[in-house]
This record gives sequence, C-alpha cells and structure tokens, in this order.
Amino acid sequence: MKHYARPLSNLIGELSKLPGIGGKTAQRLAFHILSQDEKDVLALAEAILDAKKNMKYCSICGNLTDVDPCSICTDPARDQSIICVVESPRDVSAMERIREFQGLYHVLHGAISPMDGIGPEDINLKQLIIRLQKNDVKEVILATNPNIEGEATAMYTARLIKPAGIKVTRIAHGVPVGGDLEYADEITLSKAMEGRREL
Amino acid sequence: MKHYARPLSNLIGELSKLPGIGGKTAQRLAFHILSQDEKDVLALAEAILDAKKNMKYCSICGNLTDVDPCSICTDPARDQSIICVVESPRDVSAMERIREFQGLYHVLHGAISPMDGIGPEDINLKQLIIRLQKNDVKEVILATNPNIEGEATAMYTARLIKPAGIKVTRIAHGVPVGGDLEYADEITLSKAMEGRREL
Repeated sequence: MKHYARPLSNLIGELSKLPGIGGKTAQRLAFHILSQDEKDVLALAEAILDAKKNMKYCSICGNLTDVDPCSICTDPARDQSIICVVESPRDVSAMERIREFQGLYHVLHGAISPMDGIGPEDINLKQLIIRLQKNDVKEVILATNPNIEGEATAMYTARLIKPAGIKVTRIAHGVPVGGDLEYADEITLSKAMEGRREL
Repeated sequence: MKHYARPLSNLIGELSKLPGIGGKTAQRLAFHILSQDEKDVLALAEAILDAKKNMKYCSICGNLTDVDPCSICTDPARDQSIICVVESPRDVSAMERIREFQGLYHVLHGAISPMDGIGPEDINLKQLIIRLQKNDVKEVILATNPNIEGEATAMYTARLIKPAGIKVTRIAHGVPVGGDLEYADEITLSKAMEGRREL
C-alpha cells in the first residue's frame, strides 16, 4: 500500500478487515468510494454508524433488532408455544425467508465448541432455560447448524430441556432439494435413509 | 430485506451499492459490522469519510493524492521529461508497483468512448496539452488500456501531440508472461508477432 496516500491506504486497510474482502477488492472498493458523490459516501458511512448504534439484541430472544423486545417476540399472531433455537441472527432471517414457521426464535450466538474453548455457559442457553420456565412452551425446535458444533449444541440443549417434559425436535438431515444423489456425502445420505418417511 | 429492521436493511442496501457486492455478501458484511466492537465500526466509518474528505485529484497530473501537487509530481528525483498517460489513478498504482518507471504521470480519468458519449473533451486531455506546452517533455508514453476505448484514446492523443515534435510511444501488446500461447486470442498473438524483437 506504499504508493497510496495515508487516507486512501487507511481506507483500504479498514475495508480489507471485512470478511471475504482481500487487498485487491479493498482497493477496488476504496477507489469506487472516492469516485462517488459526497452525499453517497456520507450515506454509506452514516448507515454503518446508524446500524451499529441502533441495532441491538432482543432481550428475550437474542435476535438483532432496533426495538426491544423485537417485532417477532411481540407479534401477537405468532405461536408463543413453539421456540426455534438457532445459532445466529442470520439463521433467523434464513428461517423467516421460508415464511412457514410461525413460532418464536431463540438465538444462541454461537455453538458449543470445545476446540475453540466455547462451552455451554458461553452461549445464550441460560436465557433459553429462563424462557422455558416462565412461559408455556410446548415444543423446542433445534435448528443449529448441521455440523459438529451445531450437533453437539443440539444434543446438549436437548438433554437440558427434556427433563422439563417439553417436546424437543431437531430439523431433518437429508439430501438437499435440487441436489444430485451421486454427489451427496455418505453421512448425509445415511441420515437421509435413516430419516425416510412413508409416502 | 423485509425481515430486517430499518437500520440493518439500510446498511445492507448501502453496502450492496458497492461494486461486486451482491445482496448475500452485503448481508454477510452487515452482520459482521454489527458483531464488531464499536471502535472498529467507528474506525471504518471514519476511514470512509476521511478518505473522501482528504483525497483529491492532483492539479498537475490528476492522480489521487492527499497533498496538491502530488508526491510524484513534486519528487525531484523523478524524470520530468517523460510523462506516462493512463486512464485512472489505479493504473498509476499498477505502474508504480513495477518500480521501474521514473517519470511523471498524467491521469485522463476515462477513455474516449463514442458508444458511451464520452468524447475527447470529457477526459483530462486539455490539461495534458497545457503541461506539454509549459514543460520540456521529451517523451509521452501512452499506457491507456489495451481495449477499443483505450486504443482510440491512444490514437487520438498521439495525433494531438505528435505535431509538437514530442516522441509518442505506446506500451507493447503481446502475450502475457506466464500465459499459454495456445490460449492467447488471435489479435494478441498477431500483435505479439508484429512487435517481435531481435534477440
């Protein structure tokens, strides 16, 4: 970056800290930003600051929101007796995109991962237990990621909740729709066989 | 974006205006920004505003700079008699990376493109002519892009300058180093043959 003046190299440096943005892309973005009108650049900077300032985590479910409690938790149309447990706010929006689930969410903000030193007390599990004690919840759907950490988190959470007599379910594993069977890995395929349903 | 709160969807919207940043990437970046410490987010927003505020175009060569005239134009070690003409400030940094060229630059901020309604008067050509009249320049190297617009700009500029008795050169076209001859397109290959040199 030595050929760039300080403000520019500083901007490139900040941009390249973003995930998936390498040096070349950061350069391209920086030059693009400098070529924009001042009001557009101001809009970008303000959107960043505004989002950081006004977005917080819902004190009930842990989802990202600008009002607390979030609009999902306070929506009277939603089924208060089903809670879907996910790892991150992005998972909430993925679930919301399917427009099928009408219950509430609980965001763990991570998954149990002994390799990274993340234990059950480091994720938002305690708050889930409090919610289950306070409210009349009939089913908890564990929708953590289908990887080692997500599975471990689901197992741990299930064992924690089941004694309270609440129904605990895990989202289905299987071959993704639109995929090719021949390219499915063995574990996915065996899970798909295991979870087969009568038609 | 309807599942996101306004500050977040606004940020995603602003980020997805950046070149090469689609909706999914903008979402990922936005969530990353929100997960950062406040001081890191502030640093990013400030770098954007600071760069936009303090970076300007050099009044001599048109390159991006934080001081006017730029550090290249005012460097006494550089050869004032050679000017390399490029299309954009990014081309200057590409040339500077090879650490071979010791002359000055002239940034056109575009190329002649009748298709896009960009004529010779829309790019920074006039300033180049003024520079050539004022200073004792021996050679002008045309390093516009090797595409139709860049070639047209080079041809036009050459015709404009040559009558003044200044040497005008064009960077060589040929097969890129490290490339495969069999994959070179016909025009590049024919240019490479045309520009062959005795060893």
